[in-house]
Amino acid sequence: MKRINIGILGLGNIGSGTYKVLELNRRHIEQTTGLDLRVTRILEVDTERDRGFTVPEGIFTQDIKTVTDDEDIDVVIELLGGVEPATSFMISAMGKGKHVVTANKAAIAENYESLTGAAANSGVEFRFEASVGGGIPLIGAIKEYLCANEFVTLQGILNGTTNYILTKMGEEGRSYEDVLSEAQKLGFAEADPTADVEGHDVANKLSILMSLVFGVRVKPDDIPTVGISKITKGDIDEAAGEGSVIKLLANAYRTENGVECNVKPVRISKGHPLADVRNEFNALFIQGNAVDELMFYGKGAGPFPTASAILGDVIAIARGL
Amino acid sequence: MKRINIGILGLGNIGSGTYKVLELNRRHIEQTTGLDLRVTRILEVDTERDRGFTVPEGIFTQDIKTVTDDEDIDVVIELLGGVEPATSFMISAMGKGKHVVTANKAAIAENYESLTGAAANSGVEFRFEASVGGGIPLIGAIKEYLCANEFVTLQGILNGTTNYILTKMGEEGRSYEDVLSEAQKLGFAEADPTADVEGHDVANKLSILMSLVFGVRVKPDDIPTVGISKITKGDIDEAAGEGSVIKLLANAYRTENGVECNVKPVRISKGHPLADVRNEFNALFIQGNAVDELMFYGKGAGPFPTASAILGDVIAIARGL
Repeated sequence: MKRINIGILGLGNIGSGTYKVLELNRRHIEQTTGLDLRVTRILEVDTERDRGFTVPEGIFTQDIKTVTDDEDIDVVIELLGGVEPATSFMISAMGKGKHVVTANKAAIAENYESLTGAAANSGVEFRFEASVGGGIPLIGAIKEYLCANEFVTLQGILNGTTNYILTKMGEEGRSYEDVLSEAQKLGFAEADPTADVEGHDVANKLSILMSLVFGVRVKPDDIPTVGISKITKGDIDEAAGEGSVIKLLANAYRTENGVECNVKPVRISKGHPLADVRNEFNALFIQGNAVDELMFYGKGAGPFPTASAILGDVIAIARGL
Repeated sequence: MKRINIGILGLGNIGSGTYKVLELNRRHIEQTTGLDLRVTRILEVDTERDRGFTVPEGIFTQDIKTVTDDEDIDVVIELLGGVEPATSFMISAMGKGKHVVTANKAAIAENYESLTGAAANSGVEFRFEASVGGGIPLIGAIKEYLCANEFVTLQGILNGTTNYILTKMGEEGRSYEDVLSEAQKLGFAEADPTADVEGHDVANKLSILMSLVFGVRVKPDDIPTVGISKITKGDIDEAAGEGSVIKLLANAYRTENGVECNVKPVRISKGHPLADVRNEFNALFIQGNAVDELMFYGKGAGPFPTASAILGDVIAIARGL
C-alpha cells in the first residue's frame, strides 16, 4: 500500500465533504487503487464547529508554514476560496515541491499563468477538476482523453443556482424574484447572489475552459457577460411558445478571427440534450473535429460531488508518484 | 518531440478513420502533447482499396510477426474485430512488450482475464476506451477520475442502431420492420442485424462495464438479454401515453446479494436526460456514492468518433513512456 500524506487548506463545506468521502470510501479506494490517503494537516481557524466527524489530535494548524514546510506532505488541497491568500499559499506549496489540487475557480481564472507556471518550475502537478462542473470529470477528459481533437464549439450550463432559478420559473410559471428568494432560503443561492445571477461565476469557469479547450487565455473581466436578473416570465413564456427553454450559457466557438466567447441567456430547443439539464445540474456540450458532439452532465456543486473531483485529482497524482 | 511508433492491425473503416484523424490533427497533437505519432506498420490484406489517402511504401504487411517482432513499435492498435485471431495477436504483442489499444468489445468481453493478465505479466498497458460508447471518454473517466466513488447504479444506451430504430418508431410512428430496413439501406444496421437488435452487442459492452464499474466479472452469455425485435408500434404508443419513451438499456445495480445486471427495453419518462438521447447517439447514466448522478453523451460509433477514443488511449500511453 502506497501512503500519501495530504494537507487541507480550509475545512468548510467542501473541505468537510472531502474528509467525509475519504473516510466513507477509504476501503474501496485502498482496494481499487492500492493507495492509503491520509490527511495529516488541516489549516483552519474554526476548530470547534460540529462537522459530523472528529479530526484527530494535532492535525489542525493555523500556520500555513506548518503545511508548506512539512516534508512529509505530498499533496496540498486548497479549499479556502477567493483569490488571496489562496493563490500565494498554492504557489508557496508548489515552491516547496508539493502537488496542489484546488476547487478555486476565482484564483485559477485570475492567476492561471502564475499557478501553472509555478507547477512547471517546480516539476509538480497542479490540478483543478473541481473548479468547473463540480463532480463532472470534464477537465480530465478534455486534457487527457480528447486531445486528438481540435475543438470547434463549446456550450456550458455551469452554474447550478441560475439553472435552478430558470428551471423553476419555466416549470412553475413563477417570477425571478420569487424563485430567487426561495433559492436563498434553501441555501442554493447566496445572500448576495450577484456573482451567480450576473454570470460572473460562469465567466470564471469559461475563462478556465478557454485555456484548456482552445489554448486561449481570456481573463473573466474580458468575457462579455450577461446574467439572468433581467429575465422575465414573459421572456420564458415567449421561448416556450417557440418550443424552447432559456438557459444561461457559457459559449465559445472558432471564427476566422480566432475564438470568440461570451456568457449570456440563450434559447434552447426542447429535444436538445442541454434543454433537459434541470434544476441544480450542470452540463458541458462540446464539439470536436473527430469525436463530434459530446455532453457531460452531473452535479456542478455540493460537498460530495466536489469531493469526488478533488479526490480523483489526488488519486491521479498519487498514481504517478 | 517524443516519437511513438504505431502498428495497426486491420485497415477497415475504423483503422482508416484513425489514420485520417492522425494526419488531419497531426500538427495540433504535436503542439498540445509534444508527441510525434507515426504509423510504421499496418497488417492488412486489402492493400488496393481506395481509402481516400495513400499509405507510404513498405508500411503494409500480411505477416503479424513483422508487427509483433518489430522492436521499434511501441503501441499496437488492434482493429480486426471478432474474438480470434484478434485475442491471440494482442496477447502475442503484449508478450513482446508492446502496449495494446483496441476497440474490440467482443474480444474483451470474452477474454477479459487473459488480456488484462497478459498486460500485467508484461508490464504494458492494455486500453480499450473505444470498445464502449465509441468516442465518449467514459472508461477513462471511470477508471481514473471517479475512483473515489463506490458506484450504485448504471444505465446505458450503448447501441446506436437500436436507438436509431426506436427513435424513428417513436417520432415518426413507423413500424420496426420499416425503420430497420431503412437503417440497413443507410448503413446504420448490418444485413444480419441480430447482434444489434437482439441486444448481444449491448451485453458485450455491459460485460466490460461490470468489470470496470463494479469490479464484477460477468460473461456476456450470462447477462439476461432481451432485444427490441418484439417491440411494436403499440408498445411505443402506450409508453408515449404515459409520457415515456422506450429505450434499449444496459442496466446494473447493487442489491443485498451483489450486483445484478440485464439488457432490456425500458420505459423512460420524458424529462429524464436519457429520454433525449436520440437516433445513433449513446449515453451512460451512472450514480456514484460521492458524485451522485452523472451522464456521458456522444457518438457511440463511426470512424472519426472511434478514432478519437483510440488516439486518446495511444496518447495516454505515450505520455507515460
